Amino acid sequence: MLQSKLSKAVALTSVFIASLALSSTARAITPEDKVVLEQLKQSSLKSDLSYELIESLTTEVGNRLMGTEGDKRSIEWAVNKMKALGFDKVWTEEVKGTYWQRGHAHAQIVAPFPQKMVVLALGGSVSTPQGGLEAQVAHFETLADLKAAPDNSLNGKIAFVSYRMTKHIDGKGYGPAVGTRVTGASVAAQKGASALIMRSVGTDNNRTAHTGVMRYQEGIAKIPAVALSNPDADLLVNQLKRNKPVTFKLAVETITGHGQSAVSANVIGEITGSELPNEIVAIGAHLDSWDVGTGALDDGLGIGMTMAAAAQIAQLESRPKRTIRVILFAAEEVGLLGAKQYLADRKDDVSDHVLGAEWDFGMGPIYKMTPGVGANALNSIREFAQIIAPLGVSLSPMNNGVAQSDMSLLTKAGMPSVNFAPDGTDYFDYHHTENDTLDKVNPDDLKINTTIYTLFAYYAAQAPVDFRK
Amino acid sequence: MLQSKLSKAVALTSVFIASLALSSTARAITPEDKVVLEQLKQSSLKSDLSYELIESLTTEVGNRLMGTEGDKRSIEWAVNKMKALGFDKVWTEEVKGTYWQRGHAHAQIVAPFPQKMVVLALGGSVSTPQGGLEAQVAHFETLADLKAAPDNSLNGKIAFVSYRMTKHIDGKGYGPAVGTRVTGASVAAQKGASALIMRSVGTDNNRTAHTGVMRYQEGIAKIPAVALSNPDADLLVNQLKRNKPVTFKLAVETITGHGQSAVSANVIGEITGSELPNEIVAIGAHLDSWDVGTGALDDGLGIGMTMAAAAQIAQLESRPKRTIRVILFAAEEVGLLGAKQYLADRKDDVSDHVLGAEWDFGMGPIYKMTPGVGANALNSIREFAQIIAPLGVSLSPMNNGVAQSDMSLLTKAGMPSVNFAPDGTDYFDYHHTENDTLDKVNPDDLKINTTIYTLFAYYAAQAPVDFRK
Repeated sequence: MLQSKLSKAVALTSVFIASLALSSTARAITPEDKVVLEQLKQSSLKSDLSYELIESLTTEVGNRLMGTEGDKRSIEWAVNKMKALGFDKVWTEEVKGTYWQRGHAHAQIVAPFPQKMVVLALGGSVSTPQGGLEAQVAHFETLADLKAAPDNSLNGKIAFVSYRMTKHIDGKGYGPAVGTRVTGASVAAQKGASALIMRSVGTDNNRTAHTGVMRYQEGIAKIPAVALSNPDADLLVNQLKRNKPVTFKLAVETITGHGQSAVSANVIGEITGSELPNEIVAIGAHLDSWDVGTGALDDGLGIGMTMAAAAQIAQLESRPKRTIRVILFAAEEVGLLGAKQYLADRKDDVSDHVLGAEWDFGMGPIYKMTPGVGANALNSIREFAQIIAPLGVSLSPMNNGVAQSDMSLLTKAGMPSVNFAPDGTDYFDYHHTENDTLDKVNPDDLKINTTIYTLFAYYAAQAPVDFRK
Repeated sequence: MLQSKLSKAVALTSVFIASLALSSTARAITPEDKVVLEQLKQSSLKSDLSYELIESLTTEVGNRLMGTEGDKRSIEWAVNKMKALGFDKVWTEEVKGTYWQRGHAHAQIVAPFPQKMVVLALGGSVSTPQGGLEAQVAHFETLADLKAAPDNSLNGKIAFVSYRMTKHIDGKGYGPAVGTRVTGASVAAQKGASALIMRSVGTDNNRTAHTGVMRYQEGIAKIPAVALSNPDADLLVNQLKRNKPVTFKLAVETITGHGQSAVSANVIGEITGSELPNEIVAIGAHLDSWDVGTGALDDGLGIGMTMAAAAQIAQLESRPKRTIRVILFAAEEVGLLGAKQYLADRKDDVSDHVLGAEWDFGMGPIYKMTPGVGANALNSIREFAQIIAPLGVSLSPMNNGVAQSDMSLLTKAGMPSVNFAPDGTDYFDYHHTENDTLDKVNPDDLKINTTIYTLFAYYAAQAPVDFRK
């Protein structure tokens, strides 16, 4: 099916060229630009560059949590690759954050039926006391149920939230599930719990737990927090159904920097505009990943797609009018730290960013584009939508698009944005797990998604319109 | 699709009953038996018993490698369940074997690009020396390539076989893949290697390695042997493609009994025949599992299906003519030890087993039945085939069926046998991994497969024919 989609996209070229012939001065970009877009489309659909970049990153660097060796290596990797790919300018901008790394994590049901559990500490979790802790499990089906527990009702107990994330094409199951991960530990601690264990925020049934960032609320005791793999959560629920007390043992080690900061960097590369170099078309992704898997999907895909898009354009005979800036943000996973630093350094320059889009949503084919631009630019967006329609992308009737992840902060700061929505049905099978590896990347879908970003960047750099509101 | 198959099976009942009306004395079993078979079919298709048994075993026992606490608990569990389910006789028969258990296993690529690897020791592997071993990787695509390496060419190296198992409905990719696991370590040692690492014998792309039994050849140095998860094997291959020396570090601990035996037991239960109690219809599975996952598929399914089949028949108003014996074999995974002991104790009594079938092939729906019976019994087999045809089972034209796993030894010793073949396409995604858990069981497929075994056991116990050759 995916292969046929790619073939169809290529086959539709003749239809596309025929429609070009019909286009008149009513359209915004020039016939010459349309020819270039067609060339870019053909070359990008044939190019393995984005896949090769992801293969290189995952093979030569692997995972790259802020503050780790992998993070340092990924910065070097990105700088070297951008230079080799013909970017006009490449530089880094320092980003600082809190140091946190994963140590061991062991868990087991002790009684009534002893069984080992597969768990991962949530990012930011404290360690258990030396030797671990052992306590009775108090089961809640939702975060709301945990919140409703009386104060002190969990004294000496381990709180367990078994909420099951649901699968949807747009990933909308993530929102209702992720609250427990981010805030659950402090809610449980407030009721007296000694630890939080939770079903993973994920839609798979693999024996691989899903990590992700958590936060402690000020003034509440910090308790360790881990995610169980989903089959382990099922097993724990099944033991609890026997209506006997269930005792759980948890030993988690995490390493903090004792006040020392973790240092990372945004990596930025540009194809400098030939006529409007100070007007920036921003495409980006995040360079960091969680410290499990190799970060192929999250966000190797975005790195590969945006770097390849700019590199394809750098191969053209001449530079487009506006500057195309690829921003690989540091430390997205631990709280959008790279994006925050990027914005802090550009308080008065956000308006230089005339249009932007990030990619941080996995391997599914893009099926929808939602703009968030000035009303005067909507005709131009419609023109672009026709260009990418043969690639399977429909145009949302809404004009409230927010760029993904890091760049959502730029959207909020006023940057006109486009959101490309993929089929995210399976993304949360792998998100933040050891299973986030290269084999999950579908090369054909990737070619199409990369082509969409290539066409987007070029179109935005050439369109004789102001996308700003 | 699976749900609709179940509905269809129930709906076809009226057709089946209509065909009963047409059956004449030309058919072997009585009209009364056909009515009972239809009752059994209806009740079995509605029954959750086999699922409940697997849920109970995986929740209350979990994995159960010979010699472990889980193994002991599984024997108690099986005895108690059989008694509770109304079996007429329940007993155990001791089985002894070599003690082996898993300790830790850590592996990583050290150079050129350091990355952690997910590995599992193969069953029976020795430990690495204290502190692990570190050596350059010598890559072979197949076991044949490894065998072709000159003597001493692997001195001081780790041999890596990257053979990729292929997916097939009948699981035929297993044979070509499993040789490396069983014999590879000694082949590698003979060439001078200090360890064997291999791509898992499995068809998934999960970060969960596949264990399984291996054997050392007499007179050759014993070297440690591990399986890498398939994504890790891919990553190692990708690093090797850079044509730089790849250094690998391996630290594996395994625990042997220092001469002490592991003790386990076959668990056997019977529904005693009312007219021919000494003629045994044998259905079975293996009670042990590997020490990863909860052994839901391998072989929780077979345990649940065969126990439920006999239990359904035990609920009938009267006992069938022949004895139905459920044999839950010990220590299949480590070399069919339970089956060997069972046979050793019955050298002269194999002919008491008038027909047998094991289940040890996962969760897919059964689509084919292959008999291995006396020619005089083929008409009776065809009659039975018509009874289960509405459940999606076709009759093989061959008469060379061998019972699965343990019972293959009984087939070889002369027991008439039936082999039921399932859709095994996905089975080797989970086989011998941490991912072998309850969630992989499809309750609807399980109901149909259990019904097939129920009808088989009853038919075989009633059919007025000698299945023996």
